[in-house]
Amino acid sequence: MSEGLGGRLSGGDLLAGYLHSRAGDFLRGLRVYGESGADTASAEAAARTLRGAARRIGGGLHTFRPLLDPGWADPFRTELGWLSGTLAQEHACTARLHRLLGALARLSGGGTGGAELPGARTETPPGGPLLAGQPAAGAPLSGPPPAAPPPGALTVGASRAGALLERQLTLARTRAHSATLQALGSSRFHAVADTVAVLASEVLLSPLAEAPAAEILTASVEATEHRLLDAVAALPLARAAHPYNSDALVHGLATASDGEAQDAPWHHVRRLLRMHRYAREVWCEGLPPDPALRAAGQALDRHRDAAEAAAAAANAARTPRIAPATAYALGILHADQRHEVEAARYAFQQLWHQTAAHR
Amino acid sequence: MSEGLGGRLSGGDLLAGYLHSRAGDFLRGLRVYGESGADTASAEAAARTLRGAARRIGGGLHTFRPLLDPGWADPFRTELGWLSGTLAQEHACTARLHRLLGALARLSGGGTGGAELPGARTETPPGGPLLAGQPAAGAPLSGPPPAAPPPGALTVGASRAGALLERQLTLARTRAHSATLQALGSSRFHAVADTVAVLASEVLLSPLAEAPAAEILTASVEATEHRLLDAVAALPLARAAHPYNSDALVHGLATASDGEAQDAPWHHVRRLLRMHRYAREVWCEGLPPDPALRAAGQALDRHRDAAEAAAAAANAARTPRIAPATAYALGILHADQRHEVEAARYAFQQLWHQTAAHR
Repeated sequence: MSEGLGGRLSGGDLLAGYLHSRAGDFLRGLRVYGESGADTASAEAAARTLRGAARRIGGGLHTFRPLLDPGWADPFRTELGWLSGTLAQEHACTARLHRLLGALARLSGGGTGGAELPGARTETPPGGPLLAGQPAAGAPLSGPPPAAPPPGALTVGASRAGALLERQLTLARTRAHSATLQALGSSRFHAVADTVAVLASEVLLSPLAEAPAAEILTASVEATEHRLLDAVAALPLARAAHPYNSDALVHGLATASDGEAQDAPWHHVRRLLRMHRYAREVWCEGLPPDPALRAAGQALDRHRDAAEAAAAAANAARTPRIAPATAYALGILHADQRHEVEAARYAFQQLWHQTAAHR
Repeated sequence: MSEGLGGRLSGGDLLAGYLHSRAGDFLRGLRVYGESGADTASAEAAARTLRGAARRIGGGLHTFRPLLDPGWADPFRTELGWLSGTLAQEHACTARLHRLLGALARLSGGGTGGAELPGARTETPPGGPLLAGQPAAGAPLSGPPPAAPPPGALTVGASRAGALLERQLTLARTRAHSATLQALGSSRFHAVADTVAVLASEVLLSPLAEAPAAEILTASVEATEHRLLDAVAALPLARAAHPYNSDALVHGLATASDGEAQDAPWHHVRRLLRMHRYAREVWCEGLPPDPALRAAGQALDRHRDAAEAAAAAANAARTPRIAPATAYALGILHADQRHEVEAARYAFQQLWHQTAAHR
């Protein structure tokens, strides 16, 4: 862990340098956002910069809490969490809508031509390397490619389901956009921005921060890593290693809260993995992250996205007075996204197994 | 292939011995059926015996056609196909209903306690041996087991979907039962039974049947094996080897015929595999079948059963005036069964890969 670390630096010096840089990112994002005006692409990029910086500062405050003045760091971290959470909503709504409409097109066997794109869903098939020795028999689908589906009852259902989801998620996105605008104009935000502006040049450290970086930062990073390993050990990984175990859909027809309870430990690992990645950045600023850990994190991002998309489909199915064909299509869509949840768990298990082999 | 074969026997002798035995099975089944009266369990067992014997005789007539008088064998085989197809319907309706109601219980996270039975769906997890080296981390599901789901809108949908399927499939089973009774009382059936009675002591052979068994039967069995290998080579096995490829649901919202076209080559292999198994029985009567081939055949049986169950769910969703919650549950059920289809393809691919390694 300590390779490449300047032995003469104190933990506080190294951490302060990292936090100064992230605060600079934040202030740059804020300036670009202020100048973006009607340029939505620029505003979105600026919001992403703001969010990334807020998360990293919050992560640093959390991981290296013993090095910091807790009376300053703890409330600051809470405010950064509020800000990054608010900023994430609009983007999440857009991504969820794209995911669901893409899935509907794929499930209709037409549109984006799911059947024609063998790699469309599993760009990096997780089972690939394990099964490399199998005979490469007949990769193309047998039979001629299907023609565009004629307008039947279920296809009508799919397009109605798409229209319903578009309406609901566009509304949610508009609300999220308003919430972002409101947040960025609030005195609460200005207080956060002021604290970040101070952070760009000054960090309130604790006496522990005087200790050599190699010693004191290592302890904090290892604590983060242990929490991550413990959380991963609590996951049902042995189960996830069996493809098609159908765990993710086991509450497909029960109440929504059962499904959420099942997902929670995976979401927890996703957050800890991100925290771990940020903690490593303090050490290795500018170096690319561990590819296997990054891929494992992306698998859990997919897990979260699919779980939320499945919930959105289930939620849309509760809309009063929808047609049975619409509800049927939403049921298929929900199940499809829950299988994506299961697929993401399988992928995570495979990737984690690889990283574990290297440890 | 020729180990254990009496070199002195002619092909016709060996084949005739096998067909005599199967004809005996048929006649025994028929007698038990006639004596079963109101004992439905006994009648069902007898119908199974009849069906198995009819299939094996038909398989023998097909595989060893060059050894037989085609003017006698070909129409006889057609009639045996009609009979075994008719006899299969009632059992298939019962099994389909059990499969769908079991899936509904599992998807409701209660009833049969899907979450409590980690092996319930993958008794022989196909990915097992490949992944044996992974850490056995936290096999139990995290969090407390869910309580029985409170009656919510979707749970109402699941129970209504179950009632609808029960009504439709019970009706289909009743019809199949009547069709069986009608078939077994028909002059068409009596003609088949008469031919089988003759078969118990006499087989109409062609001049080729004089050739030594080791030579002439081997040629026929190998022809069957080649057809099987060709059909398997035409399957998208490389694709099936990637878990969660979502191929099976790619037409989930398109027309039913698209999904059926996708399944057809797998059903074809299922029939050829059964034919191959029957052909081997002529050689190795009384010996247990190759376990890997048998497991591969069972995977394709599951493939067929799940495909038909998925079609039954989609069909039920087309019932006029159903509630949206019912349609939603049927959509989830359809998608679940299509994922069972995909899981069966994955399992077949794994098993076939194992048998290929032994060849």
